[in-house]
Amino acid sequence: MLLAGNSVGKEFVVTCFGESHGRCVGVIVDGCPAGLLLSEQDFQIEVEKRIPPQPEIVSERREKDIVEVLAGIFNGFTTGAPICTLVWNKEAISTDYEQIKDTPRPGHADYPARIKYGGFNDYRGGGRFSGRTTVAFMMAGAVAKKLLGLFNIEVLAYAIEIGEVKVKKKLKLEEIRRNTYKNAVRCPDLESAKAMKETILKAKNEGDSVGGIVECVAMNVPVGVGEPIFDSLDADIAKMLFDVPAVKGVEFGTGFKAAQLKGSENNDVYAIRGGKIVALTNNAGGVLGGLSSGMPILVRAAVKPTSSISKEQKTVDLSKMEETIIQIRGRHDPCIVPKAVPVIESAVAVVLADHMLQAGIIPKVSQEQK
Amino acid sequence: MLLAGNSVGKEFVVTCFGESHGRCVGVIVDGCPAGLLLSEQDFQIEVEKRIPPQPEIVSERREKDIVEVLAGIFNGFTTGAPICTLVWNKEAISTDYEQIKDTPRPGHADYPARIKYGGFNDYRGGGRFSGRTTVAFMMAGAVAKKLLGLFNIEVLAYAIEIGEVKVKKKLKLEEIRRNTYKNAVRCPDLESAKAMKETILKAKNEGDSVGGIVECVAMNVPVGVGEPIFDSLDADIAKMLFDVPAVKGVEFGTGFKAAQLKGSENNDVYAIRGGKIVALTNNAGGVLGGLSSGMPILVRAAVKPTSSISKEQKTVDLSKMEETIIQIRGRHDPCIVPKAVPVIESAVAVVLADHMLQAGIIPKVSQEQK
Amino acid sequence: MLLAGNSVGKEFVVTCFGESHGRCVGVIVDGCPAGLLLSEQDFQIEVEKRIPPQPEIVSERREKDIVEVLAGIFNGFTTGAPICTLVWNKEAISTDYEQIKDTPRPGHADYPARIKYGGFNDYRGGGRFSGRTTVAFMMAGAVAKKLLGLFNIEVLAYAIEIGEVKVKKKLKLEEIRRNTYKNAVRCPDLESAKAMKETILKAKNEGDSVGGIVECVAMNVPVGVGEPIFDSLDADIAKMLFDVPAVKGVEFGTGFKAAQLKGSENNDVYAIRGGKIVALTNNAGGVLGGLSSGMPILVRAAVKPTSSISKEQKTVDLSKMEETIIQIRGRHDPCIVPKAVPVIESAVAVVLADHMLQAGIIPKVSQEQK
Amino acid sequence: MLLAGNSVGKEFVVTCFGESHGRCVGVIVDGCPAGLLLSEQDFQIEVEKRIPPQPEIVSERREKDIVEVLAGIFNGFTTGAPICTLVWNKEAISTDYEQIKDTPRPGHADYPARIKYGGFNDYRGGGRFSGRTTVAFMMAGAVAKKLLGLFNIEVLAYAIEIGEVKVKKKLKLEEIRRNTYKNAVRCPDLESAKAMKETILKAKNEGDSVGGIVECVAMNVPVGVGEPIFDSLDADIAKMLFDVPAVKGVEFGTGFKAAQLKGSENNDVYAIRGGKIVALTNNAGGVLGGLSSGMPILVRAAVKPTSSISKEQKTVDLSKMEETIIQIRGRHDPCIVPKAVPVIESAVAVVLADHMLQAGIIPKVSQEQK
Repeated sequence: MLLAGNSVGKEFVVTCFGESHGRCVGVIVDGCPAGLLLSEQDFQIEVEKRIPPQPEIVSERREKDIVEVLAGIFNGFTTGAPICTLVWNKEAISTDYEQIKDTPRPGHADYPARIKYGGFNDYRGGGRFSGRTTVAFMMAGAVAKKLLGLFNIEVLAYAIEIGEVKVKKKLKLEEIRRNTYKNAVRCPDLESAKAMKETILKAKNEGDSVGGIVECVAMNVPVGVGEPIFDSLDADIAKMLFDVPAVKGVEFGTGFKAAQLKGSENNDVYAIRGGKIVALTNNAGGVLGGLSSGMPILVRAAVKPTSSISKEQKTVDLSKMEETIIQIRGRHDPCIVPKAVPVIESAVAVVLADHMLQAGIIPKVSQEQK
Repeated sequence: MLLAGNSVGKEFVVTCFGESHGRCVGVIVDGCPAGLLLSEQDFQIEVEKRIPPQPEIVSERREKDIVEVLAGIFNGFTTGAPICTLVWNKEAISTDYEQIKDTPRPGHADYPARIKYGGFNDYRGGGRFSGRTTVAFMMAGAVAKKLLGLFNIEVLAYAIEIGEVKVKKKLKLEEIRRNTYKNAVRCPDLESAKAMKETILKAKNEGDSVGGIVECVAMNVPVGVGEPIFDSLDADIAKMLFDVPAVKGVEFGTGFKAAQLKGSENNDVYAIRGGKIVALTNNAGGVLGGLSSGMPILVRAAVKPTSSISKEQKTVDLSKMEETIIQIRGRHDPCIVPKAVPVIESAVAVVLADHMLQAGIIPKVSQEQK
Repeated sequence: MLLAGNSVGKEFVVTCFGESHGRCVGVIVDGCPAGLLLSEQDFQIEVEKRIPPQPEIVSERREKDIVEVLAGIFNGFTTGAPICTLVWNKEAISTDYEQIKDTPRPGHADYPARIKYGGFNDYRGGGRFSGRTTVAFMMAGAVAKKLLGLFNIEVLAYAIEIGEVKVKKKLKLEEIRRNTYKNAVRCPDLESAKAMKETILKAKNEGDSVGGIVECVAMNVPVGVGEPIFDSLDADIAKMLFDVPAVKGVEFGTGFKAAQLKGSENNDVYAIRGGKIVALTNNAGGVLGGLSSGMPILVRAAVKPTSSISKEQKTVDLSKMEETIIQIRGRHDPCIVPKAVPVIESAVAVVLADHMLQAGIIPKVSQEQK
Repeated sequence: MLLAGNSVGKEFVVTCFGESHGRCVGVIVDGCPAGLLLSEQDFQIEVEKRIPPQPEIVSERREKDIVEVLAGIFNGFTTGAPICTLVWNKEAISTDYEQIKDTPRPGHADYPARIKYGGFNDYRGGGRFSGRTTVAFMMAGAVAKKLLGLFNIEVLAYAIEIGEVKVKKKLKLEEIRRNTYKNAVRCPDLESAKAMKETILKAKNEGDSVGGIVECVAMNVPVGVGEPIFDSLDADIAKMLFDVPAVKGVEFGTGFKAAQLKGSENNDVYAIRGGKIVALTNNAGGVLGGLSSGMPILVRAAVKPTSSISKEQKTVDLSKMEETIIQIRGRHDPCIVPKAVPVIESAVAVVLADHMLQAGIIPKVSQEQK
């Protein structure tokens, strides 16, 4: 029961708070069963994934985010009470952003946010609309992944397209596991990764930015997870992915290409392998009628090129109601895809944890003891 | 507050009930303000849009759906109480579907539904997973559209791609309004419409099916509608569209193509026209940071080829746990896109009505009197 | 997720629709696990409990309510889909109520409803505010009780006070089971029941009404049911009871009398009996810190005297804004307690079913098969 | 949309976190409109009301709670983003509570909590079940009261009964405003206050405790606030009050005494005074059919005697499954009523803020500017 838009989930409920240049960014995870082994280090690992180690392709702002656990963990285990964690904002330089108060940046939420909140919103660094809030996704994802791990569910996201560079080979699971975080752009195909990095650096040098596509696979999701009609699994994953800043498209399995296939090509026929029912293909991306099919969940998200670019752009001065030119200063990512990869992974994990609870497969009480 | 998955919306709350071969398909719309002029005829018009008049391209089952209003309307106006409407199922021939009890149809929810519900689900005609339940979307859409109409918001969906036929010209708004429902495939470009129809008939003759892409535009949505971070406008529209059967992808504005654009190309720069702030392009599809930007909302949904085809397909017999062949009998649409067009239109309208209420732009009480 | 006020529950979600003098009163129960044996007869039995058989103490309107199941049951079992049932309104005589349009009845919702809904509410017979809507409680209760029965949970409500007549003896469980529905006022103490009936008839003869107190006990609720802090078991039961028309007070265990006890008197001390932990008293009414304690849930609700009386009363004419006198015609109950008894029983059962699901004690999937 | 039990409200959504002996107790208020003038001082004033200044009648633990605002306020105004505030726990002495791990205190949630959470709950000081969490009520109440103040709504709670001492005179509004916080027990009748204090001290000296009754009045709530059937105003207030630790009964207006009145006595008849419609009495306590009637909301809550007493009590040792004796050490309030007074006031304010938003009377956007 919750109208305000800062919470998501029905049983594994994530509420996020904090602004880019406020005191902190935090998250509450409510509904996590008691008895899950969980430490500050589990959060720290996830949060650090967010920032690729190669500084040349990310913005120069490098928060040294140290996660603090404020509530919900006792003697190393979750207690069943809401888990609250946060990172303090240390590096925010708000003066960089004073200019955006009246001159909305193209491609950003500045203008609609000003209208929506009557000018009272914290516009510094984009406030609630900053990519900085994705730290909350990472912290929630840390809990979700730990929980899903008890059920052998593994969620893996990775870049498959940046600018004009596409991964052309079929990626193996082992390759994804091994390579994704070994390179700055989080692409498991190391050849493509190199080319992607160059594409990003080129855009950076031009004062411009590029976008890309992130793919995410979830292994070992049992059959029948999802709540049709209106809380279907794919719908909830899509919703969460569109909540990730800069995502403009989401597709499952063959996705938009399914439009051009025949039913006989697109249907995944069933067979028995090793005494188990399997589908011989996975054009459905692991979801049928809003329910998991037992095949890997396979979803892709289109990430737009970073809106903040240093090139001059037309905009309007809202205080004078006249056209003007903006040149965005400060630290910006020439490509948001490398940061989006772990965020999307966390986002999918959060939805799966929620739906596994909804389906009653994850019990609501203490994993270890009961 | 509502866990079970058959409701959607926070203020304009739609709950759907009924099965394909049960007694009826119905809907409850709760949260519609009192004082909206609304008649049974308003529902009837929308429900009839669902079935294209040309029988050759749709399934031969043609329910003559007559909407009955059970509650929530008094003296021709909404009362503020929940509105309940339904259509009775008359034509269902359940014997057609007895075979699917144990042999799940590829591409359908039969198998995961059986697992999820332990075999207790109503499998006849797909039960809750049948396209028949989209009648509920239409009835809810009828209320939403009437409500949005008071604010000059117009929602228009139409086919832009079926099989290999794509609309190549830029569609004008007038053309969309005038042509969409003048042809069987609901494509405003009449040239393309002809080719699409042929593509469908060809697939039908082969015992196969084709998919397509539906585009939807919403005009005059005010700036600042949407509830970030987790109930952003695009996220909620996407969620609702993935709840429409057969949708496998959703994108806004340039969508997946944004991956290949530069920031300087993709950003929509602001200008002043006629004293008003406008964006000179609409690559964002009318949504920035989860809020409406004041530009038209522009969204596309990929619809997979109909899963039910008459061609033989491999499957398994769940009662014997052995592989087998299924040939789906009964009445099936060779292409679901023409039916999906009005359903997607309704789906988007429902989300907009909900968000306009959430944003406080639609007042909660009596339009006419207060 | 659901703002509008016509739904209750988080996992066992009850949505009610229909008006006193509209076409029907109906209910949707969403979230009931698949695989529960449930028939139209189960609903019918509960709905018929609502009307005491002795016509002299209830209103003369005697709907012959026949429950119809519209959705959610297949082959005699719940399917996991929303269950929709309704009763049609047959006897409504709307002309009786035309006078209340402008002259609000004291003690009724007429005046605030008119203001809230800007005059668009269906005022006939009180519309949504009529006791008639409690049929929905009964139908939802039928599902809840069947579900709770699988876990040996028994919910029993009964009158303990009507007007100035109080039950003074301690009631035994067997007596409650045996006697409650054997008498018109639903009081298990047959001596008191007689006196209560006379009190009601006396009030009726005077054109007046009386109130009373209903007690409800729930046996065998396991320890630890409830979701603190804000969805505690007692809070949710209390909320549901205040949603029953005419309830003005709710208390658990010693309730208001606890105010005058010492801690050492009021605390229920623990002991071991037959290898099990028990409390030696039940002053807490079975709830500690919002969680069930393992002792019987014991709750009482104060029911006000029926607002509709035939005696003349002062009121105002809203159309003329002048004071006037109203004499309520039509059929009214001189005491609503006998009808409230089964409604309160259903209300408590609904909350318990919801919380047993929330606690993960009732599994979400098929009772029989999985 | 939110299953887990640590949130309440639909539009003014309060989520609370933290444990008695953890790092902090905090709260998130989501849904407060942007543009409300709100400072740390506003929170501080409310939080300090919680602890009566006379140390002899409260526990000796005296947290010096300093509220920190972590998010949602910018330049002195609310931003429309979630407001997060907390107080750090400084004085917690956990060793006091080690004994309760295995020997549940009578009247506390220790035993059911242990069962519910499989022993993983933070039992120190009662953890989530401690009265310490009511700091969160106070912080949420600070926002609610500020918001309600814009609409001239005033919420006032005060003790009317402690142990055997009852306020017998009719309290005037001015007296309530002037006297409540002038005395340790928060009773506006200073004569009674003195006797109440003595009653408390007597219980304290006996190693025992006493309970009481808190009354709360809300002035100037407009007509028609509340969402029937299931989110009626009285139901939501009652729910929130039962979430306040130690509350065992709630009644509106004449409450339980209504059971003994005739309808003609209990109905509040309407009249016109100064051109406005008023009721000549307020037996309904300001709520009719779940909607505010325009009269003051009048509600009473029964508070049980503090469960923690220093007298020896029987209990069981859960680790050995044998009966034993517990003597609770540490700091305990001999009467919780004085602390409950401001908490109940805050609780009612939170529900009213939520319902005023739900009714659309408080606009969702910026008070000052829009």
